[in-house]
Amino acid sequence: MSALDINIKVTPEMLHWGRRPTFEMVEEIKNGYPSDVSRWLIGAHTGTHVDAPSHFVEGGTTVDEIALDNVVGPARVLDLRHVEEEITPADLQQAGIGDAKRVLFKTRNSTDALTRAEKSPTWVGLGPEAAQWLADNGVLFAANDYMTIEAPANTEKWPTHVILCGAGIVILENANLADVEPGDYMMVCQPVPFEGREAAPAPTVLLPLAY
Amino acid sequence: MSALDINIKVTPEMLHWGRRPTFEMVEEIKNGYPSDVSRWLIGAHTGTHVDAPSHFVEGGTTVDEIALDNVVGPARVLDLRHVEEEITPADLQQAGIGDAKRVLFKTRNSTDALTRAEKSPTWVGLGPEAAQWLADNGVLFAANDYMTIEAPANTEKWPTHVILCGAGIVILENANLADVEPGDYMMVCQPVPFEGREAAPAPTVLLPLAY
Repeated sequence: MSALDINIKVTPEMLHWGRRPTFEMVEEIKNGYPSDVSRWLIGAHTGTHVDAPSHFVEGGTTVDEIALDNVVGPARVLDLRHVEEEITPADLQQAGIGDAKRVLFKTRNSTDALTRAEKSPTWVGLGPEAAQWLADNGVLFAANDYMTIEAPANTEKWPTHVILCGAGIVILENANLADVEPGDYMMVCQPVPFEGREAAPAPTVLLPLAY
Repeated sequence: MSALDINIKVTPEMLHWGRRPTFEMVEEIKNGYPSDVSRWLIGAHTGTHVDAPSHFVEGGTTVDEIALDNVVGPARVLDLRHVEEEITPADLQQAGIGDAKRVLFKTRNSTDALTRAEKSPTWVGLGPEAAQWLADNGVLFAANDYMTIEAPANTEKWPTHVILCGAGIVILENANLADVEPGDYMMVCQPVPFEGREAAPAPTVLLPLAY
């Protein structure tokens, strides 16, 4: 069995939307302590992370309340490397979304914008029409390979987030799909259960589809 | 397929060894922002978390470098609810550890010490002789159900941590096994990849053993 880790590393130098994470060493072996112990200041949206519905819906499901069915189960990686900026419903259909309930969008971000330490002027996101298609078709989980699933033109009113969060669809952002072949996998995505909050780092692996 | 979540929630009121996590709201819907956004100050050892070998071994494997084989694969939950304070090699054998490579110790902690918001005066940990047995038998991963895998009497010199970290065995602490039947599972444990550091929150699920 070979598992694929699709997570980006969390480091003070990493790609970030607003502020980078920082850490301090509380104890260090090299200073005579028995062990290394670190403490971290991180955004809930740091690295490969989940947005829960409550990110955009007041009173919505929080990250510690997400049903395992949303984030654990068969998932389909769609090849959307040809898309320029905004994924449309036609793109989803042509890439073979079919009746998949958990979907990950492999775009050129994984080998381009996601690899840079500074925010890119452009990237590929999910358009609101495609978000509505996911909501209308009972999708439970949607992932893309940049800091936001929103397309660049829509980051003032966030319509894709409003639609996805409103429909209870869990969002994964900053998934690194560079080394993942499009196709079907068993996915395990696990947000850190920050009680009552809107998002959390959510390490994710893809396993051979055997369930 | 039913998955079991064995994680404890991360909250400012939680059980802690030294300092509890805190968070601040950066943006809030109720204050007119489009979304909720939070930021967290957490120890690397907060909640259900992994200790990498570098926790006790200077230059050892860090949490972002852990091989997937250590934390993803078949795992055995051992019933050790009768143990009073320190798990011995005989306890491991009697509980049926056999040739399991990833093991989780279900003790009375899960329904006792782990359920309290304040540190308990006593709990069940893994004794150093049992740690050495794991090292001698090629075990890759060991989990217990309290803030530390160390037995209470050994938390000055940390011999169990020294042995496990020295042998490259990944440690999971604060696993909540109260609702988990002893037996074999497919485990997926995923530390947040804090680059170069000794530990990280590591949400973990147990799935039916189908691999």
